[in-house]
Amino acid sequence: MKLWGGRFAKATDALVEVFTASIGFDRRLYRQDIQGSIAHTKMLVRQGILSPTEGEKIIAGLQEIAGEIERGQFTFTAAREDIHMHIEARLQEKIGPVAGKIHTARSRNDQVATDLHLYVKEETAAVLALIAELQGTILHLAEKHLGVIMPGYTHLQRAQPILFSHHLLAYFEMLERDWQRFRDCARRADSSPLGAGALAGTSFPIDRHYTASQMGFSSCYRNSVDAVSDRDFVLEFLAAAAILMQHLSRFCEELILWSSQEFAFIELDDAFTTGSSIMPQKKNPDVPELIRGKTGRVYGNLIALLTTMKGLPLAYNKDLQEDKEPLFDTVDTIKNCLTIFAPLLASLEVKEETMERAAAEGFANATDAADYLAKKGVPFREAHRVVGNIVRYCLEEEKGLADLTLEEFRRFSPVFGMDITGVIQTKSVVAARESYGGTAAGQVERALKEGWELLAQKQEKPGP
Amino acid sequence: MKLWGGRFAKATDALVEVFTASIGFDRRLYRQDIQGSIAHTKMLVRQGILSPTEGEKIIAGLQEIAGEIERGQFTFTAAREDIHMHIEARLQEKIGPVAGKIHTARSRNDQVATDLHLYVKEETAAVLALIAELQGTILHLAEKHLGVIMPGYTHLQRAQPILFSHHLLAYFEMLERDWQRFRDCARRADSSPLGAGALAGTSFPIDRHYTASQMGFSSCYRNSVDAVSDRDFVLEFLAAAAILMQHLSRFCEELILWSSQEFAFIELDDAFTTGSSIMPQKKNPDVPELIRGKTGRVYGNLIALLTTMKGLPLAYNKDLQEDKEPLFDTVDTIKNCLTIFAPLLASLEVKEETMERAAAEGFANATDAADYLAKKGVPFREAHRVVGNIVRYCLEEEKGLADLTLEEFRRFSPVFGMDITGVIQTKSVVAARESYGGTAAGQVERALKEGWELLAQKQEKPGP
Amino acid sequence: MKLWGGRFAKATDALVEVFTASIGFDRRLYRQDIQGSIAHTKMLVRQGILSPTEGEKIIAGLQEIAGEIERGQFTFTAAREDIHMHIEARLQEKIGPVAGKIHTARSRNDQVATDLHLYVKEETAAVLALIAELQGTILHLAEKHLGVIMPGYTHLQRAQPILFSHHLLAYFEMLERDWQRFRDCARRADSSPLGAGALAGTSFPIDRHYTASQMGFSSCYRNSVDAVSDRDFVLEFLAAAAILMQHLSRFCEELILWSSQEFAFIELDDAFTTGSSIMPQKKNPDVPELIRGKTGRVYGNLIALLTTMKGLPLAYNKDLQEDKEPLFDTVDTIKNCLTIFAPLLASLEVKEETMERAAAEGFANATDAADYLAKKGVPFREAHRVVGNIVRYCLEEEKGLADLTLEEFRRFSPVFGMDITGVIQTKSVVAARESYGGTAAGQVERALKEGWELLAQKQEKPGP
Amino acid sequence: MKLWGGRFAKATDALVEVFTASIGFDRRLYRQDIQGSIAHTKMLVRQGILSPTEGEKIIAGLQEIAGEIERGQFTFTAAREDIHMHIEARLQEKIGPVAGKIHTARSRNDQVATDLHLYVKEETAAVLALIAELQGTILHLAEKHLGVIMPGYTHLQRAQPILFSHHLLAYFEMLERDWQRFRDCARRADSSPLGAGALAGTSFPIDRHYTASQMGFSSCYRNSVDAVSDRDFVLEFLAAAAILMQHLSRFCEELILWSSQEFAFIELDDAFTTGSSIMPQKKNPDVPELIRGKTGRVYGNLIALLTTMKGLPLAYNKDLQEDKEPLFDTVDTIKNCLTIFAPLLASLEVKEETMERAAAEGFANATDAADYLAKKGVPFREAHRVVGNIVRYCLEEEKGLADLTLEEFRRFSPVFGMDITGVIQTKSVVAARESYGGTAAGQVERALKEGWELLAQKQEKPGP
Repeated sequence: MKLWGGRFAKATDALVEVFTASIGFDRRLYRQDIQGSIAHTKMLVRQGILSPTEGEKIIAGLQEIAGEIERGQFTFTAAREDIHMHIEARLQEKIGPVAGKIHTARSRNDQVATDLHLYVKEETAAVLALIAELQGTILHLAEKHLGVIMPGYTHLQRAQPILFSHHLLAYFEMLERDWQRFRDCARRADSSPLGAGALAGTSFPIDRHYTASQMGFSSCYRNSVDAVSDRDFVLEFLAAAAILMQHLSRFCEELILWSSQEFAFIELDDAFTTGSSIMPQKKNPDVPELIRGKTGRVYGNLIALLTTMKGLPLAYNKDLQEDKEPLFDTVDTIKNCLTIFAPLLASLEVKEETMERAAAEGFANATDAADYLAKKGVPFREAHRVVGNIVRYCLEEEKGLADLTLEEFRRFSPVFGMDITGVIQTKSVVAARESYGGTAAGQVERALKEGWELLAQKQEKPGP
Repeated sequence: MKLWGGRFAKATDALVEVFTASIGFDRRLYRQDIQGSIAHTKMLVRQGILSPTEGEKIIAGLQEIAGEIERGQFTFTAAREDIHMHIEARLQEKIGPVAGKIHTARSRNDQVATDLHLYVKEETAAVLALIAELQGTILHLAEKHLGVIMPGYTHLQRAQPILFSHHLLAYFEMLERDWQRFRDCARRADSSPLGAGALAGTSFPIDRHYTASQMGFSSCYRNSVDAVSDRDFVLEFLAAAAILMQHLSRFCEELILWSSQEFAFIELDDAFTTGSSIMPQKKNPDVPELIRGKTGRVYGNLIALLTTMKGLPLAYNKDLQEDKEPLFDTVDTIKNCLTIFAPLLASLEVKEETMERAAAEGFANATDAADYLAKKGVPFREAHRVVGNIVRYCLEEEKGLADLTLEEFRRFSPVFGMDITGVIQTKSVVAARESYGGTAAGQVERALKEGWELLAQKQEKPGP
Repeated sequence: MKLWGGRFAKATDALVEVFTASIGFDRRLYRQDIQGSIAHTKMLVRQGILSPTEGEKIIAGLQEIAGEIERGQFTFTAAREDIHMHIEARLQEKIGPVAGKIHTARSRNDQVATDLHLYVKEETAAVLALIAELQGTILHLAEKHLGVIMPGYTHLQRAQPILFSHHLLAYFEMLERDWQRFRDCARRADSSPLGAGALAGTSFPIDRHYTASQMGFSSCYRNSVDAVSDRDFVLEFLAAAAILMQHLSRFCEELILWSSQEFAFIELDDAFTTGSSIMPQKKNPDVPELIRGKTGRVYGNLIALLTTMKGLPLAYNKDLQEDKEPLFDTVDTIKNCLTIFAPLLASLEVKEETMERAAAEGFANATDAADYLAKKGVPFREAHRVVGNIVRYCLEEEKGLADLTLEEFRRFSPVFGMDITGVIQTKSVVAARESYGGTAAGQVERALKEGWELLAQKQEKPGP
Repeated sequence: MKLWGGRFAKATDALVEVFTASIGFDRRLYRQDIQGSIAHTKMLVRQGILSPTEGEKIIAGLQEIAGEIERGQFTFTAAREDIHMHIEARLQEKIGPVAGKIHTARSRNDQVATDLHLYVKEETAAVLALIAELQGTILHLAEKHLGVIMPGYTHLQRAQPILFSHHLLAYFEMLERDWQRFRDCARRADSSPLGAGALAGTSFPIDRHYTASQMGFSSCYRNSVDAVSDRDFVLEFLAAAAILMQHLSRFCEELILWSSQEFAFIELDDAFTTGSSIMPQKKNPDVPELIRGKTGRVYGNLIALLTTMKGLPLAYNKDLQEDKEPLFDTVDTIKNCLTIFAPLLASLEVKEETMERAAAEGFANATDAADYLAKKGVPFREAHRVVGNIVRYCLEEEKGLADLTLEEFRRFSPVFGMDITGVIQTKSVVAARESYGGTAAGQVERALKEGWELLAQKQEKPGP
């Protein structure tokens, strides 16, 4: 018989039991559920709603159940619907009718919201640590290859030479924003709904702030209806995860491009690639491909919950049960992607010469030729036009800018002098970009230093 | 050692094995995989590529493996990556090196595409049957309550009285379009990619049309690169599923509204509802709520795969491995929703009197008063204005149209005659809508008849 | 001729001009573009890259152009591609070749990123103000109807009686989180990309912090590649907007429900509703319906940009041009929705009696009967079962709990005493929920007070 | 005064007028609206509901209005809400009160649904023609470069050499499926909702089949409630468009890759590329980048309408007004993308030698070495392992397979004979893939022939 069956004349249809049961996935919340129940019990005792003996019995029973689940000795069944009913029913088996007192001044509506807040808080802390770790790997890689020049791209066309480390540090910045977004998300999740009851609060003299602090929450929901209806903290987590995956998808796209025979800028380690069932020569960048592909599921999870929430009246509706699977899947996906990304990066081989050769080709120094003219007083637009014409000439003659004689330069503009040769050397081009945030070595070293400082601060104040 | 490991100097990292393994979900395709391998083997024998003895050994081995999996005697491990490698490796254990011949003239790229086509074809047939079944339930329900009048709504405001059966039949029509869309999807999925090899075809003298017909496909992919790159058949299935769920979400919204104490048009059966952990009086429409909520995951699955496919170069990329989980989850979700919907509907109680009372209130007959004037030559716009004024008058006087005296009507327009009273009776209003597809009983009976005929045709030609 | 045409042998195809032009929508950024150009020019002068005279000429020209655009005297044409080229070309017409100097040490890549940051900052400030205004309207409405009781719902079934004001305040809380999310978003957008150049920084001795402060930015992007590739600030805005619309969609759903003849809890003002072209009696809640419907476009805009960004290599790609329309459309949509929501709410009529009557029906007091038993020592589960049976009895007898005699109560449990009658009065039920955040009047008054304080703080520190 | 204002005591708020007005975008439907109104009027006359004179007056007036709109002499204003009210009000100005008769037996609900069906039908026909045209361009390009070999890729790693034409024809196939999907969509859209009235049909003796045939529809909606609630035909169009854009995004990704200096397989025509404002050498593939980027907006439009429709009760709700903008934007986007794609492809330069050189490198012939062994009886798995080891050896020695001596081959397997040299020539590798749908020249020629036949059939039976 269901724990809520008093008013029903018929048993629940078996199809319905299976269809509505959430135990298949919400069992993952058992630890949070028991944590919340213990805090609730302690408060009920403190407020004189339960006797100390009752409280002790309940808490001991709950702790035993936690052990049973951890040891795999707990039986799950759709008939008991969800993790809350499983634990309460098992408690009843263990300690008898007094178990029935645990649900005093509480509803499954505030209970599940509590479990989910605890879960999001914990997992966000884990995600924050993984992001910081990946940031560290990027800093190491950037340090290791400091000085290596690669072509910078726009429109996937070679644009200007940059330091490989400078390029890598762009990802450090993206991850830094991700870290901040998850931290903000964790702060907003740090509020206890427990005590909101079904939707209206309770007539028992409970102390919500006490249970909140017992569970490590900094505050309580201020409105009981909101407390059981709100899933913003999940949506915000999913949105932060979508933006994170967008970053990882871009990084992976580049790793895949760089691993191609055409780019050949890097070689992934054998241990981080896989082969083909039919083509014996293949060494495939499966890991970055898969991360890039998994971007889809995380976007999908976000849109799933946004859709589910759209147009729901207050307060709790059963639709909300659909919040868990997209969240769990997203947590697993981003943790796995972040976890594997760090060793993947750490183990890759950088083909410095290929990169540098590519940087020296393709007129990546053309901007500097135009800037040269501009610095000598030619309006930039005119300088741009002149160098555009030189590039066209070079393409026809199959030459690079560095191959031109001074005389050839002067055919296009008399402003060119002997010093143009030095200016358009790849190394000079990179070194010249000393503006704040630019690719010159000094700037990149500054960025590395600041990067390590940022990470150090996170260690001191880890997470939310 | 991996089956493709010849060219690798290092073993795959354990993290990578787990991260890239698909066995956790693609084991669901074991039946299709074995079916495809048997067809492939038969063809290899027929073309003289394998000897008959080799073929027999392989086929017998595959059939044994099918049995092992069905009996739960098969061990799955991430190290063996996917269902294809599991089966091939197990075959090797069973029949020795000759097992290695099965992958002749085949790649995992065309193999997995084949498995997935077989799967989509089968599951689409199942979905088609479930849709038709639900359509039948709707016809039964509409027949059972033929003659019952309810208020028709626009903007959730009472608009015009309609037959409850007429309203139900709108859902029959939506499901009919769903049925057609899934049928079209199944037709397009009915094409074999097997023999496309890794991407370019094969140099072995295979017969793709033979394997196709062995597996029940009507045709073969015409281009090998397309055959291994294409996931349109999955996307089309997901899109059809999203539109289906949109329909179900609308129906569920109405069931939930009608179950509220405010509407009280229906009562869901006790066996199809659940209670509250805290509120003893509650009887909640969990099933329709959950179906409505699950719309989110199906939309999410569609956007997940669309995102994954975006911008992928040809031919196969590992990203494509992410096609399966959104598909499987969608198949399960829509099958479960369709399965439970039919008995849910069949068991609900229709509160005919409440519906009819509601239909008689709220000026749902106002259009007919305007039409009355229009039929007597008043331009419709003017008629609309006149009746609008009458409604305002009634609201002030707290009367319905049927409460007005002829004199009161004539105060607004001299065109009103004695016959207005009959015209605005709820029953007359319904009966008058005899235009094709309208709510008059004759039209609804015609629709019922045609509905049964449509279903009968499906029985004769079930599915694609 | 294009400003970048030097290297091209052929003119751009007319189709391409139209297809790639963004002037149709990015003209909206003209003010930000000119603001950025003026800041850039001032800096170039300050650093000695331009002469003071050149700087003055350019700034005067830019200010004239701003005037021309504002007065509608500016001609836009696809051939000039985008707002940046329009303004630069017009400047050239006005002040001659010196105009060509404005693009020194700058690229369109950092320029458009700068414009968009300025835009997001400004619009976020506007959105923050509108959210706070709507919060104020909610507080007013809640104050005005303090004491009115309505049924609280879960699963759209009457659950427990609550104060209408308490229900409204749940939306105050949602909007409070929205406000915070937009504020966080604005803080992260508050960083200047100007000076990143095409992607690598520049060899001119610029001062990025000076231009940043001239434009009102608190900081600069630390990495030039990131500065031109990043659209996180747009994505984060779109995600915050999606969550906001989710809230509004829920509120609108309730307004629509409450406006139905079945609920009849509120009546929208005539000025905020519209009629039907055919049904003279109709008064439709078009505004909340449309807001609910517009949730779709905002979700769509979010997924649009997430998709566009997926898998893009660094740094700038033309795909990024697709960032503007979803952003502009989202800004317009949420501002319009917030703007109209406040007067819509302020003008609605609350039918207090209907609400209170509904709250008294439907066993919304059943929890309190169970709590009554629990407080007398019956384990809650047992109490729940007992009251469930009483409800079933009442349904059969067509009675409410308040209609039962003490004797009838005692048939189900001897624990019931005379005082049960008082406990289950609707007013007592509400008044009893004094737990923090509950629906008792004292709690709601506290929430109102805190709400006004929160708003007052925002006035002091408005926005980011 | 509004045409529906009779029942209202107050004028509509100005904010509400602007917020709810759809004239800003639905004016695009003026032609369809007038077409529908003329058909409706003819039917009303034919059925004796209007007199022939009335009908003539109305039709003449409508035709004049069409002219006014086309000549830009028509004034639009938010106060008149939508295109329907604009036209009816203007008709009233022109022909007086008789204009009011046109809305007899019709509602805006069925009217707007009719307009939208007409629009979708027309635009789908246009899309079908553009798809066929692009297919033709692909066939031409494939014919022009028949015989050119490129590396086929999986995982963006060189896999096996294929004909460039074969690769192109994969896109022909994708577009063929798109064509079919749009055709199916058009067929389902080919049904008239006119005559469904507000939701229930009408009491006037109308002839819906006559109006349907006048407008060119093959059938009528069978249920009036469905007719005004259904937006499947829009959703299906949006889903087909999303899948189409997915294809184009893949093609564009490849064009961008191939245009990079690293691949250098093609060069886009100067007329189809654009330059950089700062880097004089740049020639950017803006068009394919933008098409790839626009995939986002089309996915977004699909999710927008799916979200809007989720959970709406029947019949018409104002939310449905949000159907038009995502549809219009999608129509424009896919038509523009298809239109520009054909000349873009037609004008590109194929660098045949670079492609062929790339195909000869990177062990793309390794599969054929393994197949060689398999054909001599070595189980494929073993053959795969042997060749894998050879590849590892070659990598260490920096050789290609073709550089090995027979002795070197035999060190790995004694099965190798003199003929291995011929087998692993790039040309032989391609020529050997004669299986149906493979890359051998004969297969590609067959595919070209069949492709032209398919297109010819479309010309005969163009569209739905």
